[in-house]
Amino acid sequence: MNNRIYLDNAATTPLDGEVLENMIHVMREFYGNPSSSHAHGRKVKGMLEESRGKIAKLLHCQTSEIFFTSGGTEADNLAIRSSVKSLGVENIITSAIEHHAVLHTVEELSRAGLVKMHLVKLDEKGHIDLNHLQELLQSIGSKTLVSLMHANNEIGNLMDIKKVGEIVHKAGALFHCDTVQTMGHYSFDLSEGYVDFLAAAAHKFNGPKGIGFIYISKRNRIKPEITGGSQEREMRGGTENVYGIIGLAHALEICYRDMEKKHVHIGEIKKYMIETLRREIPCVEFNGDAEGNCLYTVLSVSLPPNEAGNMLLFNLDIAGISASTGSACSSGSNIGSHVINAIYPGTDRTTLRFSFGKYNTQEEIDKTVAALKTWYATPVVA
Amino acid sequence: MNNRIYLDNAATTPLDGEVLENMIHVMREFYGNPSSSHAHGRKVKGMLEESRGKIAKLLHCQTSEIFFTSGGTEADNLAIRSSVKSLGVENIITSAIEHHAVLHTVEELSRAGLVKMHLVKLDEKGHIDLNHLQELLQSIGSKTLVSLMHANNEIGNLMDIKKVGEIVHKAGALFHCDTVQTMGHYSFDLSEGYVDFLAAAAHKFNGPKGIGFIYISKRNRIKPEITGGSQEREMRGGTENVYGIIGLAHALEICYRDMEKKHVHIGEIKKYMIETLRREIPCVEFNGDAEGNCLYTVLSVSLPPNEAGNMLLFNLDIAGISASTGSACSSGSNIGSHVINAIYPGTDRTTLRFSFGKYNTQEEIDKTVAALKTWYATPVVA
Repeated sequence: MNNRIYLDNAATTPLDGEVLENMIHVMREFYGNPSSSHAHGRKVKGMLEESRGKIAKLLHCQTSEIFFTSGGTEADNLAIRSSVKSLGVENIITSAIEHHAVLHTVEELSRAGLVKMHLVKLDEKGHIDLNHLQELLQSIGSKTLVSLMHANNEIGNLMDIKKVGEIVHKAGALFHCDTVQTMGHYSFDLSEGYVDFLAAAAHKFNGPKGIGFIYISKRNRIKPEITGGSQEREMRGGTENVYGIIGLAHALEICYRDMEKKHVHIGEIKKYMIETLRREIPCVEFNGDAEGNCLYTVLSVSLPPNEAGNMLLFNLDIAGISASTGSACSSGSNIGSHVINAIYPGTDRTTLRFSFGKYNTQEEIDKTVAALKTWYATPVVA
Repeated sequence: MNNRIYLDNAATTPLDGEVLENMIHVMREFYGNPSSSHAHGRKVKGMLEESRGKIAKLLHCQTSEIFFTSGGTEADNLAIRSSVKSLGVENIITSAIEHHAVLHTVEELSRAGLVKMHLVKLDEKGHIDLNHLQELLQSIGSKTLVSLMHANNEIGNLMDIKKVGEIVHKAGALFHCDTVQTMGHYSFDLSEGYVDFLAAAAHKFNGPKGIGFIYISKRNRIKPEITGGSQEREMRGGTENVYGIIGLAHALEICYRDMEKKHVHIGEIKKYMIETLRREIPCVEFNGDAEGNCLYTVLSVSLPPNEAGNMLLFNLDIAGISASTGSACSSGSNIGSHVINAIYPGTDRTTLRFSFGKYNTQEEIDKTVAALKTWYATPVVA
């Protein structure tokens, strides 16, 4: 895979080399069960709690507010399901462009008659309409959870998490924020109290797959969704994914250590791709708020209908370039993107999502645009 | 930790060296998201499905009947919770000595009024009373799930899984079997159809932590407990723990490859410890059915009250020996063991669980018994 170009970092990222070496060391040397009271167990328990402490320190929250999960999806599920089960939530406000981990969960609870689901309006760029959010909150009479993502995984739109938290809390509601696309790419100061729940997955920030965490503000006491042993302070049963947890904490530390440098590097790559595409393929457009409030890691490209369009992702793949149409789950087809359909209903344009990571280079962008140009360049009249 | 003696393999096992090398290779080279349609994703998807196929082949079931989870606890939860949510189960028959992953889950559903919980009686050795199971099944009028573990994690008692399956299915009920302690140590032929659900965790058979699987018979169509993307054939949302899955399948293959050899080796170690303890510490007794229908990997030792008894695990730990009182979750105290309390109510004896793995030696048993003898030997009259 080493000679290929990987521009799908919003789907998942390569494991950081430093993190990998650390994980290998732990996998080789330490195998105790953190719940065991003997030395084998205590050693591993120490490493696990050290990892939790690192995360809490980076996010400015308490160690007791961080709970490990198998990933972002489980964390989103836990926030939403436990709000209903433990905190008396009867209404959930969300949006049509949330990740399926949120959307499908709220839909299931709504179908089961456990909550009423409310969709907040989007503006023409796909941003949350904050006035409508306030109206919704005012019109609802009973306990409400607002679940809105920090940044959209398909188009990259970035929400003002603090402002939304303020609006939500002023109305006495709870705020869950899916930060799967922003954790490790932006700083958080959770001591400011703007969220009740926050979900993250290590593999989105050069950490390992199969591990994530949820932040649960100490204001909220919830019950576990996976019951069993007393792990995670009785919040999630099951022997802990020790190497995953150690890898997650290490990856997040590296993200914070290198954040400015990474932001500049990846931001330049995105800007370069926008400029190069505009120059080489004038019919290009960008979905969402690509040059405004947007993730520096994501660029959602819109191209006019074209015979190549239907097979574009396939053709790029053959040319050695890995990109996507939207989220990994709706791979290979525009029909699958609920995000594009919600913001651009009925569009006949083709969407390509390019998402960048710290290992990408401008040279890779040149090659990618050159490949795209073979299908989209304005024909030269002879 | 290398100079210590590890006799707590029922809590967790060291990662097999072959499995580790394989995982390292994958972690280094392959990072695609299995849901991505491009080459990076397809490569990983292929490895993931190959792993699923290996497991299905070893267990003689269909590939579509294996679903990966974050471990045994999540698998147990999924079997029980989805039986209630998707299959109309209104009664659950279980026993007082199940793992908390089962017991606490059934108790929660019972408290919520979603099911009626029935406890099957145990005989004096802690085995399930099959006559009582039949009576219970006959007395219940509505849809029932029986959840009984294949082998008890604290005392090692082994249940006749096929016979129980036959009884359960004859009564038209569903059968979930927690096989966390037996997977990789015994062979299964699931084509015989004796179970509906089966739960396993890789770290109990020298595989990695944070990954397990559930077998769900194709007879039963259930809904996911973790909703989101369409991973695991829409049965469990979330990007897959790819290296964990590959490690799990590899570890299970090694278990099957070496099963006879391992069974003989560990069986001899257990027998040797029983004999040595009887000779050196005559007041010793064994909990459960240690020399009958019992795991070859577990020996639950019962010792009379003694000043050292309260601190025995601590003293062993100081002597460089890792053992446990029962499950890892009830570490450090007999009060915590619901299993011992259910079979030997009011006992004042001390319980120690020794659990063996393929890396243990008779020399380690000699050292362990010698250490125990310092606190339990009959005083020699001068």
